[in-house]
Amino acid sequence: MSELYAVRRGRLRDRCAAAGSAAALVSRPANVRYLAGGAPPGAVLLLGPDEDVLICPGTTAVDPADGRPDEQLRITVLPAPGGDAVVAAAGTAAASGAESLAVEENHLTVARHRALGSVAPGLRLGDLAGAVEQLRIVKDEEEIASLRIAAEITDQALGELLESILVGRTERHLALELERRLVDHGADGAAFATSVATGPNAGLGRHRPSDRRVEEGDFLSVCLGANYRGYRCEIGRTFVIGTTPADWQIELYDVVFAAQRAGREALAPGAECRDVDRAARHPLAAAGHGEALAPRTGHGVGLEIEEDPQLAPAAMGKLDACVPVTVGPGVHLPGRGGVRIDDTLVVRPEADGGPELLTITTKELLAL
Amino acid sequence: MSELYAVRRGRLRDRCAAAGSAAALVSRPANVRYLAGGAPPGAVLLLGPDEDVLICPGTTAVDPADGRPDEQLRITVLPAPGGDAVVAAAGTAAASGAESLAVEENHLTVARHRALGSVAPGLRLGDLAGAVEQLRIVKDEEEIASLRIAAEITDQALGELLESILVGRTERHLALELERRLVDHGADGAAFATSVATGPNAGLGRHRPSDRRVEEGDFLSVCLGANYRGYRCEIGRTFVIGTTPADWQIELYDVVFAAQRAGREALAPGAECRDVDRAARHPLAAAGHGEALAPRTGHGVGLEIEEDPQLAPAAMGKLDACVPVTVGPGVHLPGRGGVRIDDTLVVRPEADGGPELLTITTKELLAL
Repeated sequence: MSELYAVRRGRLRDRCAAAGSAAALVSRPANVRYLAGGAPPGAVLLLGPDEDVLICPGTTAVDPADGRPDEQLRITVLPAPGGDAVVAAAGTAAASGAESLAVEENHLTVARHRALGSVAPGLRLGDLAGAVEQLRIVKDEEEIASLRIAAEITDQALGELLESILVGRTERHLALELERRLVDHGADGAAFATSVATGPNAGLGRHRPSDRRVEEGDFLSVCLGANYRGYRCEIGRTFVIGTTPADWQIELYDVVFAAQRAGREALAPGAECRDVDRAARHPLAAAGHGEALAPRTGHGVGLEIEEDPQLAPAAMGKLDACVPVTVGPGVHLPGRGGVRIDDTLVVRPEADGGPELLTITTKELLAL
Repeated sequence: MSELYAVRRGRLRDRCAAAGSAAALVSRPANVRYLAGGAPPGAVLLLGPDEDVLICPGTTAVDPADGRPDEQLRITVLPAPGGDAVVAAAGTAAASGAESLAVEENHLTVARHRALGSVAPGLRLGDLAGAVEQLRIVKDEEEIASLRIAAEITDQALGELLESILVGRTERHLALELERRLVDHGADGAAFATSVATGPNAGLGRHRPSDRRVEEGDFLSVCLGANYRGYRCEIGRTFVIGTTPADWQIELYDVVFAAQRAGREALAPGAECRDVDRAARHPLAAAGHGEALAPRTGHGVGLEIEEDPQLAPAAMGKLDACVPVTVGPGVHLPGRGGVRIDDTLVVRPEADGGPELLTITTKELLAL
């Protein structure tokens, strides 16, 4: 298990060396966790030429949900908490004789970067850019197993909600109940703020739950996901409240369902990300919903709920096997509401049965 | 109401002008909200020499809990969401003829700062440093009114929990229930992740709730707060589970209670922040708990749960009237648990009755 993290760090070290940096400073929390196994809040990881050090501000106590630091790492504890781990890491790098240090310019603030430069003026500072994020895109089977459990928990929480009385309850309360159920079933927490949208709000991406109550005839769309051992998944479903959906509701649902299926079916190793997006977008545009579509129809998931790759019209790059992504197109009609259907899947080759669906709650249009 | 935001922006403009910058770019979300009244996620505020512009990525839709943009502001909507608002703002500043632009170096990433520089190479970039954060320290009565409501909600949620059965329930469930009750009573959400700590965990600052169940004889410490219209307060209380506290529990509680009272009583306009910290720290050190004390005993609250001023040994500066702060010393004995008592108060002059206590839940040692 511990080898795993050393292997990941080895890959990053190779990339840095190829780019001319002997040392690297990783500060983005999800990246620190990926390379260190676990870390207390505010910790940073210094990949040195000789050894790797986890620099922790104030404490080494790690919440179990945040993993456990790899035993191969040297751990340094700073006396005071706060943001000084970055500065301390620069001092350590300089003391170890490194001449250059690659940092995460897309995470470090200008002020922190300046402090780092002034504590070690002899150090040439480079940019790690998204090197760790790139390593994180393709998951190993252990990571996928955590995502699979996260999805199971999410399906359970959603399934229980569907069995309860919904009319008259507010979006906020339904969202809080879903989050409680996620934890009941073993989640370390919600992967992101649970969204529950009713009536005219339904179908809005990431709608923040309000005090609106569920009414007969409403569309009800929910988007939630569990965080299990740091891995986060996402499911989105839309239901109708009452006995019989209206014709416009059935039509709209069918269009979004077809779009989401087309997106799922386009997932394959080697597929262009923008082609998957186009596949999901086409049925919506063909039905006259091309305007006001979201800028993307899916994205990678893992230690963060929004990772690369992006499924969007201008996205570059192709999918690989073992990349978990969401496929979640939606349509929102102002004043009337809308539909969103969202799954988490793992890209798999045809020979392995094609994309692996992690979130298995039914996508029939249920009338609740 | 709208005048309020114009006045705040005027103050910032004066500061910038004094520092030689004709324009300023505010990107930190709480600062944008403070100056603009409300803003969609990812929006930035450009204070130009001629007019102020709120630059919104993708949408102008603002969640009601996030306030409403000041009507005096010009609003620009960018076609695509994402982080481009900063770059767009730099382009707008350059087009308006500004020669210099002060940015928030303690918030902007190095990568974003670089993108900004390359889109407007003629613009001299300065640093706003914590100018907006400084303006935010002293609150007006409307802000304090929101904090007062946040505290009322928090007291209600905590009071209800105390009336329920606690033994056998897990830290996680109690935390989720508290958060649900905050929302029930009108909060826009929790001000921060609710902490519930039992037995050996009790007294740890910001302990993340685990699956440990409440047992007879435990200390139980909770820390929670409501977010009401963006304003966040904090309360911390410690209880004993069972009929009679043990002697060591009573002794420890009395020490922390005395420390917290001393801290509260030291709050006054003109008091040095470090003297308030020392007042709260002294009784703990005198009782032999000087080791392993937290690095600070309190902090400002407002649009963020941790703002300036800091109540810490090395803190610079003095308190002003109308500054809300927490006073929350604690002691944790490894393996046994501990006590933390935390209030939100507003600094007021003696003539107005001294510090105004917002969180009024009893600080007696209750046996539940």
